[in-house]
Amino acid sequence: MIPVAILGGSGYTGVELMRLIANHPQLKLTAVSSRQFEGQPVSRVFGALEGALDLPFSAAEAGALAKNARLLFLAVPHQTAMAAVPEVLAAGAKVVDLSADFRLRDLPTYEKWYAPHTCPEFIKEAVYGLPEFYRGRIKDARLVANPGCYVTSVLTALVPLLKAGLVEPDGLIANSASGVSGAGRSAKLNLIHGEVHDNYKAYAVTGHRHTPEMEQELSLAAGQEVRLTFTPHLLPIDRGILSTIYARPAGGASPEAVRECWQAVYAGEPFIRLLGPGVLPATKEVRGTNRVQLAVVADPRSGLLKIFSALDNLTKGASGQAVQNANLMLGLDETAGLLDLACTP
Amino acid sequence: MIPVAILGGSGYTGVELMRLIANHPQLKLTAVSSRQFEGQPVSRVFGALEGALDLPFSAAEAGALAKNARLLFLAVPHQTAMAAVPEVLAAGAKVVDLSADFRLRDLPTYEKWYAPHTCPEFIKEAVYGLPEFYRGRIKDARLVANPGCYVTSVLTALVPLLKAGLVEPDGLIANSASGVSGAGRSAKLNLIHGEVHDNYKAYAVTGHRHTPEMEQELSLAAGQEVRLTFTPHLLPIDRGILSTIYARPAGGASPEAVRECWQAVYAGEPFIRLLGPGVLPATKEVRGTNRVQLAVVADPRSGLLKIFSALDNLTKGASGQAVQNANLMLGLDETAGLLDLACTP
Amino acid sequence: MIPVAILGGSGYTGVELMRLIANHPQLKLTAVSSRQFEGQPVSRVFGALEGALDLPFSAAEAGALAKNARLLFLAVPHQTAMAAVPEVLAAGAKVVDLSADFRLRDLPTYEKWYAPHTCPEFIKEAVYGLPEFYRGRIKDARLVANPGCYVTSVLTALVPLLKAGLVEPDGLIANSASGVSGAGRSAKLNLIHGEVHDNYKAYAVTGHRHTPEMEQELSLAAGQEVRLTFTPHLLPIDRGILSTIYARPAGGASPEAVRECWQAVYAGEPFIRLLGPGVLPATKEVRGTNRVQLAVVADPRSGLLKIFSALDNLTKGASGQAVQNANLMLGLDETAGLLDLACTP
Amino acid sequence: MIPVAILGGSGYTGVELMRLIANHPQLKLTAVSSRQFEGQPVSRVFGALEGALDLPFSAAEAGALAKNARLLFLAVPHQTAMAAVPEVLAAGAKVVDLSADFRLRDLPTYEKWYAPHTCPEFIKEAVYGLPEFYRGRIKDARLVANPGCYVTSVLTALVPLLKAGLVEPDGLIANSASGVSGAGRSAKLNLIHGEVHDNYKAYAVTGHRHTPEMEQELSLAAGQEVRLTFTPHLLPIDRGILSTIYARPAGGASPEAVRECWQAVYAGEPFIRLLGPGVLPATKEVRGTNRVQLAVVADPRSGLLKIFSALDNLTKGASGQAVQNANLMLGLDETAGLLDLACTP
Repeated sequence: MIPVAILGGSGYTGVELMRLIANHPQLKLTAVSSRQFEGQPVSRVFGALEGALDLPFSAAEAGALAKNARLLFLAVPHQTAMAAVPEVLAAGAKVVDLSADFRLRDLPTYEKWYAPHTCPEFIKEAVYGLPEFYRGRIKDARLVANPGCYVTSVLTALVPLLKAGLVEPDGLIANSASGVSGAGRSAKLNLIHGEVHDNYKAYAVTGHRHTPEMEQELSLAAGQEVRLTFTPHLLPIDRGILSTIYARPAGGASPEAVRECWQAVYAGEPFIRLLGPGVLPATKEVRGTNRVQLAVVADPRSGLLKIFSALDNLTKGASGQAVQNANLMLGLDETAGLLDLACTP
Repeated sequence: MIPVAILGGSGYTGVELMRLIANHPQLKLTAVSSRQFEGQPVSRVFGALEGALDLPFSAAEAGALAKNARLLFLAVPHQTAMAAVPEVLAAGAKVVDLSADFRLRDLPTYEKWYAPHTCPEFIKEAVYGLPEFYRGRIKDARLVANPGCYVTSVLTALVPLLKAGLVEPDGLIANSASGVSGAGRSAKLNLIHGEVHDNYKAYAVTGHRHTPEMEQELSLAAGQEVRLTFTPHLLPIDRGILSTIYARPAGGASPEAVRECWQAVYAGEPFIRLLGPGVLPATKEVRGTNRVQLAVVADPRSGLLKIFSALDNLTKGASGQAVQNANLMLGLDETAGLLDLACTP
Repeated sequence: MIPVAILGGSGYTGVELMRLIANHPQLKLTAVSSRQFEGQPVSRVFGALEGALDLPFSAAEAGALAKNARLLFLAVPHQTAMAAVPEVLAAGAKVVDLSADFRLRDLPTYEKWYAPHTCPEFIKEAVYGLPEFYRGRIKDARLVANPGCYVTSVLTALVPLLKAGLVEPDGLIANSASGVSGAGRSAKLNLIHGEVHDNYKAYAVTGHRHTPEMEQELSLAAGQEVRLTFTPHLLPIDRGILSTIYARPAGGASPEAVRECWQAVYAGEPFIRLLGPGVLPATKEVRGTNRVQLAVVADPRSGLLKIFSALDNLTKGASGQAVQNANLMLGLDETAGLLDLACTP
Repeated sequence: MIPVAILGGSGYTGVELMRLIANHPQLKLTAVSSRQFEGQPVSRVFGALEGALDLPFSAAEAGALAKNARLLFLAVPHQTAMAAVPEVLAAGAKVVDLSADFRLRDLPTYEKWYAPHTCPEFIKEAVYGLPEFYRGRIKDARLVANPGCYVTSVLTALVPLLKAGLVEPDGLIANSASGVSGAGRSAKLNLIHGEVHDNYKAYAVTGHRHTPEMEQELSLAAGQEVRLTFTPHLLPIDRGILSTIYARPAGGASPEAVRECWQAVYAGEPFIRLLGPGVLPATKEVRGTNRVQLAVVADPRSGLLKIFSALDNLTKGASGQAVQNANLMLGLDETAGLLDLACTP
């Protein structure tokens, strides 16, 4: 069993990491930190873990955690993550950072959308943790920047198509909707049940922080600057993202051509599920799994391609992908601990 | 009190009509028909009506119902509605038809999207029942075609802007999401709780029947043919539609210009609620009301206008709008019985 | 129009009062206070009120509010309410207190379950605001203590039966479940969507503050001390309480006898809905209404009576009942502004 | 890998069996039958299974299925199950029957609550499939009657206490609430989203078929006839049961005594989770798992014990328990394939 630890385990990505590690055949959780819940058993804070993972939350800092772990998951807010990276790497542990701190390769872009970067020297070393596109580099990485949840849903749909020249890089629109766990586990008025339940609305409509991250990777794929129109919405569910993407087909590319491109690129990918004609993604079918469901149709009136991409924002959109990255970095089977299927219903 | 009746009262638009009529200050429900529930008190089928509306479901046909009513609401499927219209009008009653049978002015379009029309001679007479645009003609109409739910959300947003030349008629996209009551009250596997709850997905992505209806009215407003890319989605809520609309601003029209246009067109409109900068529509805030909430922003990356339009699919999207039309046709205050506010939460 | 005001309008009982008053034919809201939202229009905090009630939240104290109101609703926490009562009454305004401060007639009981009472001299004057039992006294009251939500569901079911000697006062059990709005509108971790959605559990199982209030009134009805076993549960809905009550029939009283008793006591009561044999209450059928639904069966195995009582915790369980009390205190029709029906679905 | 098959795989217990078998380390699904979906891949009907279990639904009868399986799961309605048993056993396969057909040891009781029994000769052989109480006999059984969902929640709570004489066998009350998947996957009006969502109500209040099954086992445990007052309720969630049980402590038994009894009886049980003082079961914490959560308190007013028991009606309440039984019958590790934890949130 390989020892791993979690910095910041009291949020939803933290508990999702614990759920996945508890049943992982080769990872053993040696410590998980939380200032708020220091000393409390993790199963008192998260009853679902009872009997499966009964260690207490620790107040240890990143460097101390790194001493008893070969890999540390950073499930802390941006800024806190970057502060932890140098000492963890110095202690010889690898890092999967679930925050945004090392996702953006361009320092001014990071500082425009987030905050001043105190650890820019590691940006270049960090590998962007989308295994379907960067698997080789992830295997050798010390520091992996785990992608954003919306981002993963959009990139898995569009990157292969931009690379293959099947969609125009101009005019891309991603209309996305997410379950509320994407906003984290914190006591905020806009997150209470009475405000979210039985409701649906857009938010952050003139600028969501996932936008530059998507544009960075889409531009790389297209070989030119891509600007994305992105609109997130809040769903009255806990988990799940569906991105409905509008793209102009390049050279009259058909849905069949899109599917063939995906099939070629994603052949053998365990977590990318390509749905056949007439089948559409559903957030419920990927709940709690590390899967992405993809489908495409052509709008008969406008000719636009409509591309649908569903995933669980906490699993493939965060902690599941983090474990997938960890598996690669530690030389394990990439799917280890990640083959759970969604419940029906 | 003015006598009115309902043909087909066992569905969700039927019970919504009953809810609104039960507390209407000037309408009295003389009969409501249902073959399935003939003879049963309406309050046994719909417990919420108990003590407020205790007549039994009748098996009477449209003509018989029309004899004891000055206006008949047709809350039956398309095809059934058209069959009832001639005898109702012959009996001297007015008609608000909640089906699609008289919404499309072009017969071939109707027959392409729906079925053969057995009563085309009334298409020309029928008035499209969106009071905010056709109020004058509705007041004098014998037969009003009550608009579709998605349609109302899109038209209230776009018609004024197309008329004013503030948005380009090309490239319009409506990404809409609806609560499941829009699919009616019927025992279908895809409507059961286990399939809908905690789920989100698109449907009818290559052609929903509301498309030609939207295009008809948008084209009239634009003075040229408009083709709309429309994608409906299913929300795990009972009631509510949010349409997120993408439009290219004509001549660089700003969100402020859009708001000014709406303010001018909708001045004094009781049911159109224009939200100020920084405020976005929420389906929960219009639940059970006859309101439409509208808002607009410009996407800073693409320059596209993002327009948000929320309503309750059963109220302003169906039965509330039907009562609004009936109020106009019967010479009553247009808001009578329609001023309920949404519950919070 | 009669001027009324609300002390503490930023919670769910506050906004429910505003919803009901906005459409009340004879009440006009002159002011509503909130320290947190001072100066903001109420419709910015609660979008559902937009266009119907556009005054700003005030920072005025109770005494100042009372000067421009004939009646003040206290929608503040216990302790805060009692501090406001003397100056409001001194200013000549009547009071409906939605807190617990004047519900318990026995001072030590209050102080055991809540906190020291700073205003005990008004306890005797306060009238318990359950109109179905105390209508006469409420009409003449200056100070009405509006009952608790669970309490109203249990008392409407049991008080007539205890008075009539149809159930034994020993061994009563109330197994209740409530929507989460009963816990108020506050930023607490246990109220966020992720904790409440798709979940069901009991809470406060060894002592909920509504227990002494129920026992007080049940004991008065029984003419002897009644001890109640009460277990509240949290439902993943916003609004609604269902109490499932187990009672031993006295002298072999049948469900028919129970229904006859209720029918006699509740004849003409507009808000008490007695369901016939084979029909059971449903929280959805009373959502947003001032109704209580009651039903009874006998368990064929144990002979116990099972009594079911449903209401909306924010309407008949709080603010609707408060308006009902205000109507009585101000000489208005008791049902004014309170006849809304629940939406289906 | 041991070949197993499912008779009747198109319902929710069928798909739950498939979910569990798909990731089971030692079971291989050779066939699953459904008349309705014959020939369709299971993953077209249940998208969550895509890529993990891609066999088509078969129209084969039980006897044919048994030829290629060492064990057959019967996930068909009662009456259909009993008709299949003789030929399956004759073909040499073992049977886990998820229906009620062999749960009741007393033939007249079965026929009173269900229907005429066409296969009574196997009732005596059938072993009641609650492994925590009948593990030894299950290991040797050819035919196991898998318990009802409500039943499992009540028996795991009460059987040890009745055996130990810690609760009185008279006056037991089980107030239970279940997610709607317990009613199966069928196109019925009372199961559609609009009827279930945002609602809560009781049903089957004068006689649910799980009552005689509970009474049978409780009576065996108590050594005397036990009559149970049982009231099921419908929750607006898909999965989960919470039973709130009221019991009189025998000889003043304390909650601590109850916990000690459970600890002794359930020591080493992997699926029975005993919650400490101050912690209460929550359906969400056992969702998709084979766990039962148990807790107990004493009501300070009545002295009654309140016992709380939570499980997932489709997993420990049906298909998970069926796999647990199959593991025992096939000589496998009892927990194989059953250690998944619930997602948070």
